[in-house]
Amino acid sequence: MPSWMTKEGPDQDIVVSSRIRLARNLRNYSFPTVKDLRKEVKIIELVGESIFSVNKNMKEDFQLKQMEDLTDIERMEKVEKHMISPQLGEKIEGAAVLFNREENLIIMINEEDHLRIQALLPGFQLKKAFGMANQIDDLIEEKLDYAFDESLGYLTACPTNVGTGIRGSVMLHLPILTLTGHINSILQFSNKVGLAVRGVYGEGSGYSGNLYQISNQISLGATEEEIIQKLEDVTQQIIGKERALREELIQNKRPEIEDQVYRSRGILENSRMISSEEAMNHLSNLQLGVSLGLIKDITSGFLNQLFIKIQPGSLQKHYNNELILSVRNQKRSSMIREEIKRHTENNNTEE
Amino acid sequence: MPSWMTKEGPDQDIVVSSRIRLARNLRNYSFPTVKDLRKEVKIIELVGESIFSVNKNMKEDFQLKQMEDLTDIERMEKVEKHMISPQLGEKIEGAAVLFNREENLIIMINEEDHLRIQALLPGFQLKKAFGMANQIDDLIEEKLDYAFDESLGYLTACPTNVGTGIRGSVMLHLPILTLTGHINSILQFSNKVGLAVRGVYGEGSGYSGNLYQISNQISLGATEEEIIQKLEDVTQQIIGKERALREELIQNKRPEIEDQVYRSRGILENSRMISSEEAMNHLSNLQLGVSLGLIKDITSGFLNQLFIKIQPGSLQKHYNNELILSVRNQKRSSMIREEIKRHTENNNTEE
Repeated sequence: MPSWMTKEGPDQDIVVSSRIRLARNLRNYSFPTVKDLRKEVKIIELVGESIFSVNKNMKEDFQLKQMEDLTDIERMEKVEKHMISPQLGEKIEGAAVLFNREENLIIMINEEDHLRIQALLPGFQLKKAFGMANQIDDLIEEKLDYAFDESLGYLTACPTNVGTGIRGSVMLHLPILTLTGHINSILQFSNKVGLAVRGVYGEGSGYSGNLYQISNQISLGATEEEIIQKLEDVTQQIIGKERALREELIQNKRPEIEDQVYRSRGILENSRMISSEEAMNHLSNLQLGVSLGLIKDITSGFLNQLFIKIQPGSLQKHYNNELILSVRNQKRSSMIREEIKRHTENNNTEE
Repeated sequence: MPSWMTKEGPDQDIVVSSRIRLARNLRNYSFPTVKDLRKEVKIIELVGESIFSVNKNMKEDFQLKQMEDLTDIERMEKVEKHMISPQLGEKIEGAAVLFNREENLIIMINEEDHLRIQALLPGFQLKKAFGMANQIDDLIEEKLDYAFDESLGYLTACPTNVGTGIRGSVMLHLPILTLTGHINSILQFSNKVGLAVRGVYGEGSGYSGNLYQISNQISLGATEEEIIQKLEDVTQQIIGKERALREELIQNKRPEIEDQVYRSRGILENSRMISSEEAMNHLSNLQLGVSLGLIKDITSGFLNQLFIKIQPGSLQKHYNNELILSVRNQKRSSMIREEIKRHTENNNTEE
């Protein structure tokens, strides 16, 4: 499991994770949009070498995976764990992923750009993630020649990434902003200040499990620090609003909220078949229950992990088998029941 | 608790209870439709005396309650326990109820007729119930002069009861006939052969908790035995159909049925507010689970009792207080949680 899923982070009752992604390309090679397998193989080799040659520690910590060496299920799982993008998950030939043991530093190779350097942390830690991504970026730049223009900055395949090449994003759990409908004005405001909001899982633009990913849309005309600061400020406002609404709701609608939280628990602990969509919504209610102090024998981190484990790819990886939808729904419910049982038994023993 | 709720009966996985009701009037008194409090008081006295004067046992076993001595909640509770009709529940002055300790022999006095003698048994026992009602009827007839016409039979306030004055009814739990929609042809067929079908609880004609009450519509032109036999035959057919469909479903749709049963259990064991309507539907699923052998630590009889205990009147009786709707919904869910917990703990200890 990636460390962003197993470790604790600041404001984790609302901010599930923080991510920084840097888009980089090599000067002497055409952009990945121009398909050329020999070039791609060469770039994978160069990027791998730039990390492995730093020192023995780095060589031991990182591993390089050719996308073609992964099964469909393993690719799907890596997408669900946010290690790779859905786009890379679909590109099999001439693409690779380089990642450390903690799976919090990940370099996608030959996705939309030659390199996409990512740092992923639990909770609200954009600046720390930026520091980590920066460090790797510097190490690589010592060995490789980036495509860089004095006036434009880093050159990228898509114009929206030109400049700093940076994209910061936070994954937010906003059940009460969603419940009360306040989320709509948040979405409008975010768009107005140049931030994009999208769902995290599920098809299309749905916001399953009350999860929202907020990121900067433009990476040009401001420094990395300014871009991150703006994202951080807006996120801080959203956190404040969600917290205030939770407080208000627990004061005025305690029985209703308790009912919602415990019913979800009852369904997760008892259903015999469940879709990922439905499970995410109940996990979201449980997460809310933990954060409000209603549920005491389940941790927030455990629920964050379960969010990923129940996704189709991770589920099939767990059972080591391709499963049709109806069987997945059955296996998902047994896994949820077992995981909650084991987790709460452990928690109760520790007390 | 009335013995029909606490004791076991034949075919109880489908037939909750069997009831026989005999409508009788006294010859020298105008029908209850003619309001006359002095007459009503006299009739209550006469009927009471006719029972109490039989012997010491009868005098000790039976008690007479004036409706005006009961609180609103107690009247509501007696309706929910099927001891009295909703009509008697609303008539306060000049009405009474006479019943034995087991609450399986009940005489409503000054409801639509002067006397309505009822016998109520768990499971499918129409003939036995008829025997019990008959016996009481004979005892009373020794003391009192019934309004009887040689050609018409017993005279009653409403013409549909003239003749034998008998109404037999069974309360059936038919979740799968309902789920599959086969219930509609059952309803049509029952009407065609002169039987009426109605819901047991809830407002209007709804069939809450998949419970149906089937009774004869006409009591004239056939003997008591013939009337009961027809009701018994049709009921037997319905039982057979429900059983066959349950068998079929558990063969072909086991995961779906298990899911439905366990989700209902999860909700009953976890909700923090629940309407009687919703609770009845989940109890119905649990009852199905018990009958299919999926649920082993809960008994069918326990669920039959819970069906009554969660009704608004019984619930308020339990908490000894008039409660507004939202508070009832909260109290109902705590009561359900506690009852299931106590019951399953007892059952698990016994193993």
